[in-house]
Amino acid sequence: MQRIYLDNNSTTALDPRVFKAMLADFQGIPLNPSSVHWFGQQAKNYLSKARETVAAFFHVKPEEVLFTSSGTEGINTFLRGLGNKGHLITTTIEHSAVYKTAQYLEESGMEVTYLPVGSWGAPLPEHIRAAIRPDTKAIALSASNSETGVKLDLETIATIAKESQIPLLIDAVSWIGKEPFPNHPGITAIALSGHKFHAPKGIGALIVRSSFRLSPLCTGGMQELQRRAGTENLAGILGLAESLKILSQEQTAITQHMSDLRKHLEYGLQRELPDLCIHGEGPRIANTVCFGFPGVDGEALFMQLDMAGIAVSHGSACTSGALEPSRVLIKMGVPTKLVKSSLRFSVGRLNTREEIDQVIEKTALIVKKLSSL
Amino acid sequence: MQRIYLDNNSTTALDPRVFKAMLADFQGIPLNPSSVHWFGQQAKNYLSKARETVAAFFHVKPEEVLFTSSGTEGINTFLRGLGNKGHLITTTIEHSAVYKTAQYLEESGMEVTYLPVGSWGAPLPEHIRAAIRPDTKAIALSASNSETGVKLDLETIATIAKESQIPLLIDAVSWIGKEPFPNHPGITAIALSGHKFHAPKGIGALIVRSSFRLSPLCTGGMQELQRRAGTENLAGILGLAESLKILSQEQTAITQHMSDLRKHLEYGLQRELPDLCIHGEGPRIANTVCFGFPGVDGEALFMQLDMAGIAVSHGSACTSGALEPSRVLIKMGVPTKLVKSSLRFSVGRLNTREEIDQVIEKTALIVKKLSSL
Repeated sequence: MQRIYLDNNSTTALDPRVFKAMLADFQGIPLNPSSVHWFGQQAKNYLSKARETVAAFFHVKPEEVLFTSSGTEGINTFLRGLGNKGHLITTTIEHSAVYKTAQYLEESGMEVTYLPVGSWGAPLPEHIRAAIRPDTKAIALSASNSETGVKLDLETIATIAKESQIPLLIDAVSWIGKEPFPNHPGITAIALSGHKFHAPKGIGALIVRSSFRLSPLCTGGMQELQRRAGTENLAGILGLAESLKILSQEQTAITQHMSDLRKHLEYGLQRELPDLCIHGEGPRIANTVCFGFPGVDGEALFMQLDMAGIAVSHGSACTSGALEPSRVLIKMGVPTKLVKSSLRFSVGRLNTREEIDQVIEKTALIVKKLSSL
Repeated sequence: MQRIYLDNNSTTALDPRVFKAMLADFQGIPLNPSSVHWFGQQAKNYLSKARETVAAFFHVKPEEVLFTSSGTEGINTFLRGLGNKGHLITTTIEHSAVYKTAQYLEESGMEVTYLPVGSWGAPLPEHIRAAIRPDTKAIALSASNSETGVKLDLETIATIAKESQIPLLIDAVSWIGKEPFPNHPGITAIALSGHKFHAPKGIGALIVRSSFRLSPLCTGGMQELQRRAGTENLAGILGLAESLKILSQEQTAITQHMSDLRKHLEYGLQRELPDLCIHGEGPRIANTVCFGFPGVDGEALFMQLDMAGIAVSHGSACTSGALEPSRVLIKMGVPTKLVKSSLRFSVGRLNTREEIDQVIEKTALIVKKLSSL
């Protein structure tokens, strides 16, 4: 069966060009960047060049790039380093890497303000401004919501953070690869995860201003300017850098392609299914749409689509292997019944218009069948 | 120039068979084990099989295998989860992943006993028994020292831990791949790092009894039975499992080969250099020897060897890119002058007898030249 993958917010296939870049670390030469000898020097050169590539992508200094094993690790490094006193601003619709870590900090003694997002699907700048207190230690928000795709008003919020001199962590895991990232002096740290944009799993980065003092999650070796102990995942780092290099050349075309496909999907399904709704009133990132199919059991629809060869998502893949109602939609105020009737479709740069045509046809057919039951 | 790599305790080259096993995750199919659809099921199957392979290697249950991004991460997960009260037993010659984390815990309020090791090079069982207190929360020791290769009396110490019902963390990073690992019911957790035995960098594991409650370093997704949030490094995991599978078939021959080469190196250099000494009186692991070259500047020797195409190590690669006197040797009571005249040679399974012959010849020549200066 020809399978169509519309779950690109969950993970993406490795780009063959990225794979090629990783081979330098896989071809039989032992490369530890901490070693002083010839082999170590080769490794160090690879690492430095990769770091420069990533730094250039975000318009930061190389020493402001911290390689991590995942977006989650970058987020945890930033948030847990805040300590257990003071005040944190976030929302209830963050990815669990932020949400559960905020809860962990709350249990440890920090006060956390969870801003409302409502049906808009993102916190508003005025709510953020109003939530700031003298003891606010940081603001942690996702650039775009991984489930609905709704974008933050990043420019305004970064400006508020800058004016208030409050560190702003941007979870850009579900943004990078979909649209150009508008870095802003008000952003203190940016977390990203390679496998969301065709680099391998197991590598991420935290872009963090050198003025912000991180507290390492792991002590040991002096890697990453003593901000992360442990031998560097050099192949992953090479892959991450290559995938960002590709994005710096192709992002505009990729965004257009994703946006075209997503809109084609939305229009196509809306034409076929008049009851269809789309979650999140705010502007959305190029590739993501979360549909509500009123009166249809989302789990049944998910399964039928899967059997028809179409992979989408029901809630967040990261939260569980089980199908639980999406916290994001619930916190947005979507009625539980409709939450359970909702599925996320996230297109990728490898998807084609023909695939979307098929998805529209098959999805409409299955939804109509399930509705008539 | 033909280069000879005798720094296998720092890192090793990827085994082509391991690389082949990793390709399943690199060949264009998006594989996130947390996804519920067909693609996710494929990923989950790969992950489960790899976990079973690793579990079988250590004779534990699959749920007792926690995949990490490094040995350091496994060690930090175990140690930081102990909290900041009570008492920890370790030594001053541990790898910095244990040593610096013990210091971190000490600063946080935990009491730490650093056992003496002396010229023997490993803590003695009677010292461990004597150090145990009613509030001792754990014992953390390396199975073999990464710099001298001196082995722990693992069986006796594990028995003491079992009798005393004290969790024992074994840092096996510099052991796995060199000799068969004798798991013991008294060992609570074992930390390992893939790249030390021809798996890639960026993947490790913590083997941990299900009776021991870990506190995750990162919160977020529910991966690894909620013990480690973050999408799994599936390629790395496949590589780690394959490399352990290879070891389960070939370890005996590998150990013999390493041991032969190391002894050949020792005898050869001792014959040529009567002043030569070997650090650590205790029994050593198959592949490691730390030589003292009295009267010779270790840094100069290191550089000359590197220029002659021979890669060895001066101190631990993990501690710094700089050449600092080895903490391990200093804590063993080796005079600072001799510490600065010492280099570690760690052979690997890919080294040949011809290489060792060359190393003996060139090293002896350079040492004699430097001695005569």
